[in-house]
Amino acid sequence: MHAVLRERLAAAGLTLPEVVPPIAAYVPAVQIGNLIYSSGQLPMVNGALAMTGKVGAGVTPEQAKEMAQVCALNALAAIGTLCNLDDIAQIVKVTGFVASAAGFTGQSTVINGASELFGALFGDGGKHARSAVGVAELPLGAAVEVEVIVALR
Amino acid sequence: MHAVLRERLAAAGLTLPEVVPPIAAYVPAVQIGNLIYSSGQLPMVNGALAMTGKVGAGVTPEQAKEMAQVCALNALAAIGTLCNLDDIAQIVKVTGFVASAAGFTGQSTVINGASELFGALFGDGGKHARSAVGVAELPLGAAVEVEVIVALR
Amino acid sequence: MHAVLRERLAAAGLTLPEVVPPIAAYVPAVQIGNLIYSSGQLPMVNGALAMTGKVGAGVTPEQAKEMAQVCALNALAAIGTLCNLDDIAQIVKVTGFVASAAGFTGQSTVINGASELFGALFGDGGKHARSAVGVAELPLGAAVEVEVIVALR
Repeated sequence: MHAVLRERLAAAGLTLPEVVPPIAAYVPAVQIGNLIYSSGQLPMVNGALAMTGKVGAGVTPEQAKEMAQVCALNALAAIGTLCNLDDIAQIVKVTGFVASAAGFTGQSTVINGASELFGALFGDGGKHARSAVGVAELPLGAAVEVEVIVALR
Repeated sequence: MHAVLRERLAAAGLTLPEVVPPIAAYVPAVQIGNLIYSSGQLPMVNGALAMTGKVGAGVTPEQAKEMAQVCALNALAAIGTLCNLDDIAQIVKVTGFVASAAGFTGQSTVINGASELFGALFGDGGKHARSAVGVAELPLGAAVEVEVIVALR
Repeated sequence: MHAVLRERLAAAGLTLPEVVPPIAAYVPAVQIGNLIYSSGQLPMVNGALAMTGKVGAGVTPEQAKEMAQVCALNALAAIGTLCNLDDIAQIVKVTGFVASAAGFTGQSTVINGASELFGALFGDGGKHARSAVGVAELPLGAAVEVEVIVALR
């Protein structure tokens, strides 16, 4: 499964993570027609947040950008529970929520951690619509949360 | 209308509320193909918010979870303006916004008030993708806002 | 292109702006089937934010409502990169994010700046589902961000 994507990830020095189990009463992703909606993904690595806090206070924008990439990988893992990831035709929409300290306005740069990964992995099919906003708090104290809609061939 | 759903609600000690009129220039829900998008729903009961404030300050997580259930019921009422609710095949996506005091990171538990209701009412069709985030403020001082996308048979 | 819409905008004393280039690694809009998802739009005018700050502090609700209209125009420009805007059948969903000072709860009124414009331009087809929330910070210090999903004929 996901052979082409796994190769592209490996070329970037990355691997597809295990699916993060939902921390509540929902599922990692839902398919309707040829669209798959992922749940909002936190930057969990091996079942835990490596770091918590607000971007612009305890968390630097560079650290947060790396976390956005982790969220994007977790979103792919979630979507991969329902399809072969090599069948993704298009990353349609990315919404990125950044837990922001007062005065931090670099949400776009943070969420580029997700956007640039999708571009690298899917080429033209990775070019997505996107919103990035700065929120007050995120579940478990995460600094970043990313949700994704993809279209399958 | 909505006969099966009304029975299931009654079994849970709940009733389908009246539709909450939009507080601005939009409509409760829009159908496009077999998808219906609800507007963001506040925990209005009989035309008023029972309580305002931030979760983690004036509002407890338990109170907020109950409000998330009220939002979910209001979302069903909104969607029911466009379809027979018994024709819902799938709750596709739930997005929950929680007005959060600094340091409150239990947004997932709060939005379970909506998610668990959908699971109880729709079984496998109630298993949805979900994002939960903590925002700075919500309209009218509400503690919770929930929007829903459903798919019809 | 967009002849009918341009006439309606002119009748309202408005013009369709140039597309705002994404400030990050994504595209202004993506089409999938007959739906187009815009990216989140900031109230950019001629490449710059006229004003930054939080609504309820340095920015008044009236100013923010005007900015929401600018965001809506920018969303149309973004969507117009992919279609003739005269082919829009329905504004499906509007999500409005308002950078809110503590205690500001008038997000609905602010986002009416977008909703009322869509109503004026598209009539029944402009009646959309909507969420409005108050966030902590927005990219570049913007006071408002609006994203839109439309359906084409």
